[in-house]
Amino acid sequence: MDAEIIAVGSELLLGQIVNTNARFLSQQLAGLGINVYFHTVVGDNPDRLKTAIELAEKRADLVIFSGGLGPTKDDLTKETIARHLGKELVIDEKALSSIEVFFQRTNRIMTENNRKQALVLQGAQILPNDHGMAPGMVVESNGHTYMLLPGPPKELEPMFIQYGCQALSNRNQTNEKIVSRVLRFFGIGEAALETEILDLIDAQSNPTIAPLAGDGEVTLRLTARHVDEKKAQLMLDELENTINERVGEFLYGYDNTSLLEEVMKILKTSQLTITAAESLTGGLFQQGLTAIPGASSVFYGGIVCYSNQVKQQLLQVRQETLDTQGAVSEQCAKELAENASTIFKTDVGISFTGVAGPEELEGKPVGTVYIGIAIKGRTTRVEKITLSGTREANRNRAVKFGCSFLLRSLKESQNAN
Amino acid sequence: MDAEIIAVGSELLLGQIVNTNARFLSQQLAGLGINVYFHTVVGDNPDRLKTAIELAEKRADLVIFSGGLGPTKDDLTKETIARHLGKELVIDEKALSSIEVFFQRTNRIMTENNRKQALVLQGAQILPNDHGMAPGMVVESNGHTYMLLPGPPKELEPMFIQYGCQALSNRNQTNEKIVSRVLRFFGIGEAALETEILDLIDAQSNPTIAPLAGDGEVTLRLTARHVDEKKAQLMLDELENTINERVGEFLYGYDNTSLLEEVMKILKTSQLTITAAESLTGGLFQQGLTAIPGASSVFYGGIVCYSNQVKQQLLQVRQETLDTQGAVSEQCAKELAENASTIFKTDVGISFTGVAGPEELEGKPVGTVYIGIAIKGRTTRVEKITLSGTREANRNRAVKFGCSFLLRSLKESQNAN
Repeated sequence: MDAEIIAVGSELLLGQIVNTNARFLSQQLAGLGINVYFHTVVGDNPDRLKTAIELAEKRADLVIFSGGLGPTKDDLTKETIARHLGKELVIDEKALSSIEVFFQRTNRIMTENNRKQALVLQGAQILPNDHGMAPGMVVESNGHTYMLLPGPPKELEPMFIQYGCQALSNRNQTNEKIVSRVLRFFGIGEAALETEILDLIDAQSNPTIAPLAGDGEVTLRLTARHVDEKKAQLMLDELENTINERVGEFLYGYDNTSLLEEVMKILKTSQLTITAAESLTGGLFQQGLTAIPGASSVFYGGIVCYSNQVKQQLLQVRQETLDTQGAVSEQCAKELAENASTIFKTDVGISFTGVAGPEELEGKPVGTVYIGIAIKGRTTRVEKITLSGTREANRNRAVKFGCSFLLRSLKESQNAN
Repeated sequence: MDAEIIAVGSELLLGQIVNTNARFLSQQLAGLGINVYFHTVVGDNPDRLKTAIELAEKRADLVIFSGGLGPTKDDLTKETIARHLGKELVIDEKALSSIEVFFQRTNRIMTENNRKQALVLQGAQILPNDHGMAPGMVVESNGHTYMLLPGPPKELEPMFIQYGCQALSNRNQTNEKIVSRVLRFFGIGEAALETEILDLIDAQSNPTIAPLAGDGEVTLRLTARHVDEKKAQLMLDELENTINERVGEFLYGYDNTSLLEEVMKILKTSQLTITAAESLTGGLFQQGLTAIPGASSVFYGGIVCYSNQVKQQLLQVRQETLDTQGAVSEQCAKELAENASTIFKTDVGISFTGVAGPEELEGKPVGTVYIGIAIKGRTTRVEKITLSGTREANRNRAVKFGCSFLLRSLKESQNAN
């Protein structure tokens, strides 16, 4: 079954809101084994909507609409579809009474145009709206299936999950299940990764391999189809093994995880605590860590040491280090990481010092970064990296490199014990 | 001029990412007076992309593409357009050398497929990529303008603002100048703001008023059209005055500024230094401040005090305060702000303590936040707010409230002196 998603709303074309519905529906349809080849966004204009419907009918069996079911003048999705399919709009008594109940409960007066929301396409299957007033609907005509959903994501998402999925499963002829897995890599560029697995990409059909790069990370989405879901998972396992034999050293996690979450996981399982001394990154590492619920079990606090004075007075970096090597140096990173973990009495200390830009510092070019990692009972490590982005990108990238070095060190540390 | 936006990428159709580029470009095009009637998303498939191009040519003068300019096999936007327009792809020496420099500087080996990113459509105007490798381009053919932009928003957005806008302004035939101004408000909801200026919104034609809410802020984009740019600016001034008579107390800045940038500005002009003690926000305020170039002239460092032990030992919060009132209290916020500014020897200290969620703390509900503001020579102020979002939203919102309180206190302080 092939689907096309049409979002209706001039606010999308004006850039007032972003089309998260298309993303949500695409994810859901992939899970149901339904292909999506196009998304379209069209404004609140009946003629343009009609041409979008006619086009979608040529390309897809299933057309899903989001938006334009509300009470106001510019909500015209179902009116346009009714005219196009030659169907009547009729009042759905159940929807009408639930709208009436809504107004009674919220002590508001129901205006006449709210009745409009209870109008549905004759013969449609109704999808109840548990979080708003306009019901959704599914209707068949000339071999096509049309699904109409309300625009607000807070209504559309639960409606689709609760009622829409089932309505489509019943109509989808294929028995194939689609299973997806995202592999997350750090420390290797998109082009380099692809070069390593080019033969696999060239030969792909089922499972498929989709690379995606962003924010210094590369992901591979592996997708397999099979009538037996277990078999599909095995197909993914096999492909993943082949990929990992080549680039597994850069793999750090699966699906929606992040480098910081992986750091948090390993700290928790190893029962280790951590602190940070951040110059370059100004608190970015610590705020990322504390953004994760439960951070307090591994993190008690840390220091942002932006000036040399703070490095010296609060973190006891030696005057000599600052005088002879500067704040952006291997030695300074080492002292920062070690002293922070002493002061905060933690098992692990990480430090970030470098030149974020836009101007150079101590004669060192923008992008020069030293990351110190002090783990109790092990020799402190300092890694030097050279970044080439904007100030913001360099700071973000530095935190990711820090997490990646830390993960490696913590794993080695685990293995050594 | 009518435009259509085509986003290319199977990851969009799989729901892996959301099409924020279409939103960004739509906003920008609206500002340039260019109409957008359709957005299309198509996968990494040359045939389907070709049909999307042919369709867009029938509906628009300008076709903007995002995505598919990268180094990998599935990046095929420019190849497909080249074939469709009968144009050659040629190496752009400037783009190639900037790619080579990028690899040299980051000490990475350039693979052959990275050269592909320097291929451009013959005769195209090149849009430099200051944040990545693939250049953008603008090309004319048979009365149509085609603009090709890279997919990652971090590359596309600055490229469009820096180079794309100008390229389109030069091509847009109308004599009217379009002038836009964004007013930024904090501390008032969208509905409340809209209610205050409803008569202005209802009566709008030129200038127009477009409200937009997000992240706890509300913005109003005022847009005026006039052949004389100065006249258009005067029209905006007049409208802004009327708006500010009603809701001016909530206005904090214009266009692309942020609350943190406004804080930075006033600190600089008043020659004041600042530090922070962050519990709830875990470094979010400090990382935001240090994300702004030149932060080192007002900020030397600060502390993330996540645990009570760190609050007590490093920030000298009294045992009695923690025992009787707890870490999430007015008194604790006061001591944190004052002691931080003493320890870091600054003019201003700000503190954040509260319950981010998902669980309550010290019997205090999620969303309870105290923000302390200590300014040398003035009585320390503590503000209590109650937030109702997710953990992430509450932390972000707390920083914004902190900035807003700080701005007000610093302005009062300026006026008192």
